[in-house]
Amino acid sequence: MNRREMLKSSAAAALTLRSKHRAFSEAPAPRPIPQYDIFEATLEGPATGNPFLEITLSATFTLEHRSIVVDGFYDGNGSYKIRFMPDTQGSWSYTTSSNTVALNNKTGRFTCTAPGKSNHGPVGVRYTHHFAYADGTPYFPFGTTCYAWVHQGDAMEQETLATLRTAPFNKIRMCVFPKHYEYNHNEPQFYVFPRLQGPSDEHPQGINDYTRFEPAFFAHFEKRLAQLREMNIEADLILFHPYDRWGYAGMAPEVDERYLRYLIARLAAYRNVWWSLANEFDLMKAKTRQDFDHLIHVVQQFDPYQHLRSIHYSKTMYDYASPAITHASLQTYDFDSGPKWAKEWNKPIVYDEVQYEGNLRSRWGNLTGEEMTRRFWLGIVAGCYVTHGETYLNPELKAEESSTQKIWWSHGGRLSGSSPQRIGFLRTLLEESTRRGFDATENPYYLNASSTHSGKGAPEAILYYFDFHQPGEYEFPLGDAHYQAELIDPWEMKRTPLTGTYTGKARLTLPVKPYQAIRFSLAGQMPTSPGV
Amino acid sequence: MNRREMLKSSAAAALTLRSKHRAFSEAPAPRPIPQYDIFEATLEGPATGNPFLEITLSATFTLEHRSIVVDGFYDGNGSYKIRFMPDTQGSWSYTTSSNTVALNNKTGRFTCTAPGKSNHGPVGVRYTHHFAYADGTPYFPFGTTCYAWVHQGDAMEQETLATLRTAPFNKIRMCVFPKHYEYNHNEPQFYVFPRLQGPSDEHPQGINDYTRFEPAFFAHFEKRLAQLREMNIEADLILFHPYDRWGYAGMAPEVDERYLRYLIARLAAYRNVWWSLANEFDLMKAKTRQDFDHLIHVVQQFDPYQHLRSIHYSKTMYDYASPAITHASLQTYDFDSGPKWAKEWNKPIVYDEVQYEGNLRSRWGNLTGEEMTRRFWLGIVAGCYVTHGETYLNPELKAEESSTQKIWWSHGGRLSGSSPQRIGFLRTLLEESTRRGFDATENPYYLNASSTHSGKGAPEAILYYFDFHQPGEYEFPLGDAHYQAELIDPWEMKRTPLTGTYTGKARLTLPVKPYQAIRFSLAGQMPTSPGV
Repeated sequence: MNRREMLKSSAAAALTLRSKHRAFSEAPAPRPIPQYDIFEATLEGPATGNPFLEITLSATFTLEHRSIVVDGFYDGNGSYKIRFMPDTQGSWSYTTSSNTVALNNKTGRFTCTAPGKSNHGPVGVRYTHHFAYADGTPYFPFGTTCYAWVHQGDAMEQETLATLRTAPFNKIRMCVFPKHYEYNHNEPQFYVFPRLQGPSDEHPQGINDYTRFEPAFFAHFEKRLAQLREMNIEADLILFHPYDRWGYAGMAPEVDERYLRYLIARLAAYRNVWWSLANEFDLMKAKTRQDFDHLIHVVQQFDPYQHLRSIHYSKTMYDYASPAITHASLQTYDFDSGPKWAKEWNKPIVYDEVQYEGNLRSRWGNLTGEEMTRRFWLGIVAGCYVTHGETYLNPELKAEESSTQKIWWSHGGRLSGSSPQRIGFLRTLLEESTRRGFDATENPYYLNASSTHSGKGAPEAILYYFDFHQPGEYEFPLGDAHYQAELIDPWEMKRTPLTGTYTGKARLTLPVKPYQAIRFSLAGQMPTSPGV
Repeated sequence: MNRREMLKSSAAAALTLRSKHRAFSEAPAPRPIPQYDIFEATLEGPATGNPFLEITLSATFTLEHRSIVVDGFYDGNGSYKIRFMPDTQGSWSYTTSSNTVALNNKTGRFTCTAPGKSNHGPVGVRYTHHFAYADGTPYFPFGTTCYAWVHQGDAMEQETLATLRTAPFNKIRMCVFPKHYEYNHNEPQFYVFPRLQGPSDEHPQGINDYTRFEPAFFAHFEKRLAQLREMNIEADLILFHPYDRWGYAGMAPEVDERYLRYLIARLAAYRNVWWSLANEFDLMKAKTRQDFDHLIHVVQQFDPYQHLRSIHYSKTMYDYASPAITHASLQTYDFDSGPKWAKEWNKPIVYDEVQYEGNLRSRWGNLTGEEMTRRFWLGIVAGCYVTHGETYLNPELKAEESSTQKIWWSHGGRLSGSSPQRIGFLRTLLEESTRRGFDATENPYYLNASSTHSGKGAPEAILYYFDFHQPGEYEFPLGDAHYQAELIDPWEMKRTPLTGTYTGKARLTLPVKPYQAIRFSLAGQMPTSPGV
């Protein structure tokens, strides 16, 4: 690469999008990039014709003997970008490859430094049925659901971010595309594809230019992704969904694929991205199960970081045994089957839709806070994870004004339910109990129980949840180790330590009261906080 | 039949066992027998040898062109009896048949008169998925469970009867044999077969004379049956069960069959008898599924009245589609599947074990009263029926003293739970709403709803139960008819009539509160009380 070319290329750090790139300035000493943050290079290239279709761009990033190829993307106005999330500290170099001279064979380098204190890297599968950050820090998903929150305009979106800042959630299920559904009739501010024409009699879905992407949409979307990342909230991105009036649910196969590759090129460098191929794939009439098999393979093939990958169904379960799927994303509240499925599929199980706390007419949207709390506990003692959602109507608006209702499950905004606080209580309890996660135990089979092993030996913690059962006394088979015990009231969020230590077949008198729990922790071994 | 023979035979009415027969007196004008009560004839015959095995006895009862054959039985001390429950008013005559001259070809007659006010006859299947008494009076089973109550001695048994007198239950699940299980270690007062020897090292189950029956056992058992009958409580008799230390769970096939035939000869004339071939047949290791297929056919073949017939399982469901089964007797609390099973099997479904209200260690015995109440509601709106049980330990006894615990579910005694009162509330509501029963509706599918049709036209009542859902408003599809509505709080047992009438798609504002119900009744048509 000659000096002139180097001047045209640039390596601008983009810890967040607030940092500006420095194209066309004197070639700077490239700013160091913390591990798992984003390195971004901007290149000048052709602005004529249709660069989205006509120009190819990729780059090979190399550290010592290891190379990773990532796709670049056209960002409009003759600007091309390459993003890369380094997973190893050290001196990285890269070389571009393109079908146009202006973008081909450009090189550069940067240094990857230690990550910031709260940056643990992307989340992956660990211990078969659980998750952890790349640096080994445990990650227990306690997610929520705000399908279309990035399509609500800045004021509402700021409110959502403010809520998330103090809420107990570390994952959010959210759509890339806007949503059309009951209570969801607003027009989005940004479109993924240029919108050539709104709906008409002739074109009820309007007309989209599927040969181009809309950089403004992505700039906005990426800003939100980065804001979630700062809060250590994983963005469980729903790539397709059936609730559509713009045409996105019925695009041509080549458009689906181009969309996925463009998305990966732009977003995969965000460490907090998860790919959820679809929400309720089986309700998408224009696509077959085989179409989704293919699309998930596209993501698997082109994501350089192998972010977590799943797909969500409505009634017909996807084959979660498929090796292309990293974890199950269920719509059911059959928690009894969780341990069986975990064994069959050998991967983590997230109950991503267990209905929502709220007061809607629809069965899926009118659980009590108590029932939502109960479902989290049932999921955890089944060795699985659960996702929250809230669907309370604003009582100041009449039900008929459904188009003006702003409901957390889709729009974001504020939370008013009683379960989030209890979910936070459970999350803290879990994080204090284990650095691994709870696995369901088969014996004793007649009360819900989970235990966690740090490798071999006695479980470090054992959690019992009695659900609507109220035994007056119970014999806990604790094995040879000695445990301290704590009686837990999940709703009152009260923890009452019991005196003494317990071992063998430990018979305890219990309050004749439903929805109680007991946690045993190895005696003399204080529960550790993961410090996330 | 000559005069001397007539003197030896007798036709003694036995409305209850308090009435004495009049054998050896002057041939009386036979007392009239109310319809569905018991006609009993006593005959003198051989007392030597083993009459149980050696003597056959039956009688053919005839009214006009119709004849019914019933088996007689040996009652000890040279006394033979024939029992018959007439189902039609008029003049019945009979002729006996026996392999011994003294009992053969005896004849007699009696008049069958109108039944007493509270005598509606035996219960049978009606409207495919429901039950009714023989006289057409609706019967909705609201049962309870006292497995071994007839084996507890007179004081305790009197206490059970006193409890039943004011409890809301009209069916009781009870075993013929005594029960051996946790908390169940007492020795029974009476044995079905003569007990030749107690347990020893050589004979851990003791020794029974399986070639004879013990009339004292039956006299006692029949007294209890008659007492239940007076209270209009159906006796759901469990004929075999696995919880045994005396040998009854592992008898030879010919003993099983002789036992069933003797039971039928003695008990079938009690109109309140139901046959439950087994409790948890699949836990009876000495019997196969085919053995039970055969035994249920024996009952089907020899019961002259075709009393209701079922069999209860623990884990492996019996084939309830079998035509030998009149109704399903389930052990599950999967109420969602109820409507599907009802459709598949085309018969009534009784959830006979849905776990019990109590505070035992065991998962099946420690439900809250709230959860037991909820399960009754879920069963009813699924178009099915549910059976109660209670398993509270006496808090004055230590758990270790399990042998002295008296628990309703097995021993009877007193009820202390909070669900019976609510079950009674639901029973009254049901009896006021319909003379047919509720069938589950498929649409709307997302809240539990049942409706009832009196033949054609609009449902006379529609019942919604919201379970743990709390819609703030809901649109009820009522069709063309006009309804009055009542908001129901099943736990508070509160009924709040709503003003006005409702039709079409009726949108109602609802309290945002779990476990509420709504009943719609045809406007201007006051709910009728079945008057049982």
